[in-house]
Amino acid sequence: MKEVFGSPGKKSGLILRIGQCVFAAASIAVMASASGFSTTTAFCYLIASMGLQVLWSFGLVCLDIHALRFNKDLHTNIIVSLFVVGDWVTATLSLAAACSSAGVMVLFTRDTNICRVDANLSCDMFQISIAFAFAAWFLLAISSYVMFWLVASI
Amino acid sequence: MKEVFGSPGKKSGLILRIGQCVFAAASIAVMASASGFSTTTAFCYLIASMGLQVLWSFGLVCLDIHALRFNKDLHTNIIVSLFVVGDWVTATLSLAAACSSAGVMVLFTRDTNICRVDANLSCDMFQISIAFAFAAWFLLAISSYVMFWLVASI
Repeated sequence: MKEVFGSPGKKSGLILRIGQCVFAAASIAVMASASGFSTTTAFCYLIASMGLQVLWSFGLVCLDIHALRFNKDLHTNIIVSLFVVGDWVTATLSLAAACSSAGVMVLFTRDTNICRVDANLSCDMFQISIAFAFAAWFLLAISSYVMFWLVASI
Repeated sequence: MKEVFGSPGKKSGLILRIGQCVFAAASIAVMASASGFSTTTAFCYLIASMGLQVLWSFGLVCLDIHALRFNKDLHTNIIVSLFVVGDWVTATLSLAAACSSAGVMVLFTRDTNICRVDANLSCDMFQISIAFAFAAWFLLAISSYVMFWLVASI
């Protein structure tokens, strides 16, 4: 199996996973601290999806640290196949959550004047949270492509 | 290069491409005939993104028909690499468009009562159009994976 940037059990892979975890956690923290998020289903779904991403990426961070510390090889067929399925499901859900929230946000700020009228909604916080979600998805997408490449090139 | 289901220049690939083209065109037709879609950016973006998908898939349908008719081999490195980049860009844009429209639709129907209050919006048509968009994205996603698999397994 090829050794490429971001593959499991390498430092570059660990950095990617930590980045995913940090951005997803930041997205949840900002969204949960914004007032009025719970009235919109898309924002609640964003929190749920980012929560799943935090769990998944944190698990892989632990596995990468373990592999780096004890010099284990994670490049077996079964492990990488599991990673690739999990990565793709999480990445698709994250993109779906980020895009649906972004669609609602554009409606709030451009198509209507809900953000200006309703002082109870902290629209700036929503936007920051969505930006973090897109950053988390982008890092996860890189990992997903690397994993798929590894599986396909066996 | 492996011969798998849905690869370029095969009948299964042609059927997938025709399906993408038909669903994307249906999504555009239903959305464009619904009244009040132009007030929402997400719905306009859905039309633009599905338009791109129709153009891309139609081009590949023509190429597949040409290859099947004259028995040409499309399994060269450059052609498949071009296909994989185009497929992934189009698939990501389609999913983003479908999800942002779905987010807005959930806001219209569940979180608020905009659909019941505003008789000018044809919400049923919006929903059908979004469903077609998801179907088009799903078929494109299958093609994208097949193409990526072909490139990675060279």
